[in-house]
Amino acid sequence: MNFSLRQKNLRLQLGESEIDALLVSHLPNIRYLCGFTGSAGFLLVSEREKVFFTDSRYRKQAQEQVKGAKVIIARNAVLKAVGDWIRDRRRRWKLGIEAEHLTVAERKRLLEFLPSGLRLRTAPPLVERARMVKDIEELRLIRSAVQLGAALFDRALEVIKPGVKEVEVAAEMEYEARRGGAEGMSFPTIIASGARSALPHGRASEQCIAPGGFVVCDFGVILAGYCSDQTRTVWVGLELEKARSAYYAVKAAQEAAIAAVRPGITVGDVDSAARKVLAKSGFGRYFTHSTGHGVGLEIHEPPRVAAAQTEVLKPGMVITIEPGIYFPGEWGIRIEDMVAVTDGGCEVLTPTGKDFVAV
Amino acid sequence: MNFSLRQKNLRLQLGESEIDALLVSHLPNIRYLCGFTGSAGFLLVSEREKVFFTDSRYRKQAQEQVKGAKVIIARNAVLKAVGDWIRDRRRRWKLGIEAEHLTVAERKRLLEFLPSGLRLRTAPPLVERARMVKDIEELRLIRSAVQLGAALFDRALEVIKPGVKEVEVAAEMEYEARRGGAEGMSFPTIIASGARSALPHGRASEQCIAPGGFVVCDFGVILAGYCSDQTRTVWVGLELEKARSAYYAVKAAQEAAIAAVRPGITVGDVDSAARKVLAKSGFGRYFTHSTGHGVGLEIHEPPRVAAAQTEVLKPGMVITIEPGIYFPGEWGIRIEDMVAVTDGGCEVLTPTGKDFVAV
Repeated sequence: MNFSLRQKNLRLQLGESEIDALLVSHLPNIRYLCGFTGSAGFLLVSEREKVFFTDSRYRKQAQEQVKGAKVIIARNAVLKAVGDWIRDRRRRWKLGIEAEHLTVAERKRLLEFLPSGLRLRTAPPLVERARMVKDIEELRLIRSAVQLGAALFDRALEVIKPGVKEVEVAAEMEYEARRGGAEGMSFPTIIASGARSALPHGRASEQCIAPGGFVVCDFGVILAGYCSDQTRTVWVGLELEKARSAYYAVKAAQEAAIAAVRPGITVGDVDSAARKVLAKSGFGRYFTHSTGHGVGLEIHEPPRVAAAQTEVLKPGMVITIEPGIYFPGEWGIRIEDMVAVTDGGCEVLTPTGKDFVAV
Repeated sequence: MNFSLRQKNLRLQLGESEIDALLVSHLPNIRYLCGFTGSAGFLLVSEREKVFFTDSRYRKQAQEQVKGAKVIIARNAVLKAVGDWIRDRRRRWKLGIEAEHLTVAERKRLLEFLPSGLRLRTAPPLVERARMVKDIEELRLIRSAVQLGAALFDRALEVIKPGVKEVEVAAEMEYEARRGGAEGMSFPTIIASGARSALPHGRASEQCIAPGGFVVCDFGVILAGYCSDQTRTVWVGLELEKARSAYYAVKAAQEAAIAAVRPGITVGDVDSAARKVLAKSGFGRYFTHSTGHGVGLEIHEPPRVAAAQTEVLKPGMVITIEPGIYFPGEWGIRIEDMVAVTDGGCEVLTPTGKDFVAV
């Protein structure tokens, strides 16, 4: 990873944002900027300095992983080490904080440790914005994660049948993920059968799959730090014409949104491309969530692909396209791929077919 | 779960804490108080009212799960619904917030939505303190989680041998967990072999287990919402006397700390019981972390079992006892059980033996 370029880009933006330094506290942002993958630390970036603070548990790991920043191991609280470092150097900064991630208590402790001449400012989401556009190495890692993730659905299809518990399907998929090298799942695996398929967040439960219903499978892996995210919905039992036609309405909406993805279009317009198709089919009011979200080091990251959002797509952005319709108490359908925005349109990363499948 | 008792206890404490109402934002606290297991929501508790706010994704789940509180589904931002509710009722509260969990940005949004007569106060950790002492039903669930967790180590012993990758061991354990009904792992499984065993947080990697070293296995499951946490360290290859004696020093320290656990003692004294034994064996300076932590709905929760901590143990508290020693670049050893404080001392929940095992 080109950490020095990422750090340089951030430092260039500090001036434009009217802050002298940024205290990066969100761990995925820290990983993006300097490579540290541990669970505790702060990265301080000013125009001239880059310092990473952590505690003694991470001494060795920080020394090995952190690129382009001085490593300081805190003797006491890590935020105290940050405050002491700034105080010793008599900086009179406007110090940016990541308000969406720093807790109220952390901010208070930080203020106690900081010299009085220093002011805190809510920084714009500089690192999140940079992370939206993936570089070539990130795209390579994301492709690998998506490929591994897709293999889990092949395994699911071998397992899904009437009488099998949802959690048993999840168990087989997660085992496949681990054996394929995944560090873990990118979120709790959703296997939602029967009426549970109408829950957009129906984590795998002890419920047995029964004939005559959909099974929504929404799952993803973390591989080398990057997340995959995919949804397929399969029918169990004798095919119903009503289910089949609803399925193809969702598929058409999903494909319309994918067809809309290209540089220069807003994410709101991608969302409405899916929404229009479902409205025409009479399913508009059953599509109760947004069309997608960015994916990368985090399973949910900017941009939100949702109604009226004005973010403009750029080459290198990676988003999900996942319309769904839900009939509470009956069934639900969702189809989700990951796509990467290219110069001319987009590349669908998810290799799995989308035809109606009955098992 | 006796949610009404928990809510009543909290309401009794509001007055003593000089706040009129508490806005509970930490999800495990929300689950503890009203049963909601979703990933977005706020619970507002005043002396007379209990209201749970969430978004439309969780409409059905909230209606089914939330006990003892009115459910409000926000049309826009959930914090706006909270603010509107308070504003409509013209409350002039001192409103407590959970400063360790609420982000700086959430606090700012909340202030925008709240009426001007309302003041925010950092609340003491009322719910965390209540959660430290587990009731009978919680202890039953924790015992089940610990039993399932312990079965994973039996599986690990079948798999660990030279040439097997650390992640392969983790894959088999996690598969066993899922098949046993676990919702997931309570933290990323640590399988740390060879020199990696000297990393206190050595997540399972692609490294192959080699003869002549320790393998630290630190793992836990989530079952019905409650976490387990256990560590065992096994030797691979021909037994070395030096390794064996170091192992038994850690075991003696761990057992000394367990022997110290009883109502009325401070967690600091439990910590020093372990530390003294390792100091006597000459390993004191290699024991670089604290002795343990509380476990329940979260894998790490109060109390911290660490040097100089003054929290006094009470019956119903559940903590880990996990001393370890680490020789960077060489090897490490950690042994961890979960124990529940009883009226007369403690009950060791973890059933797994602790004798030196060479595979």
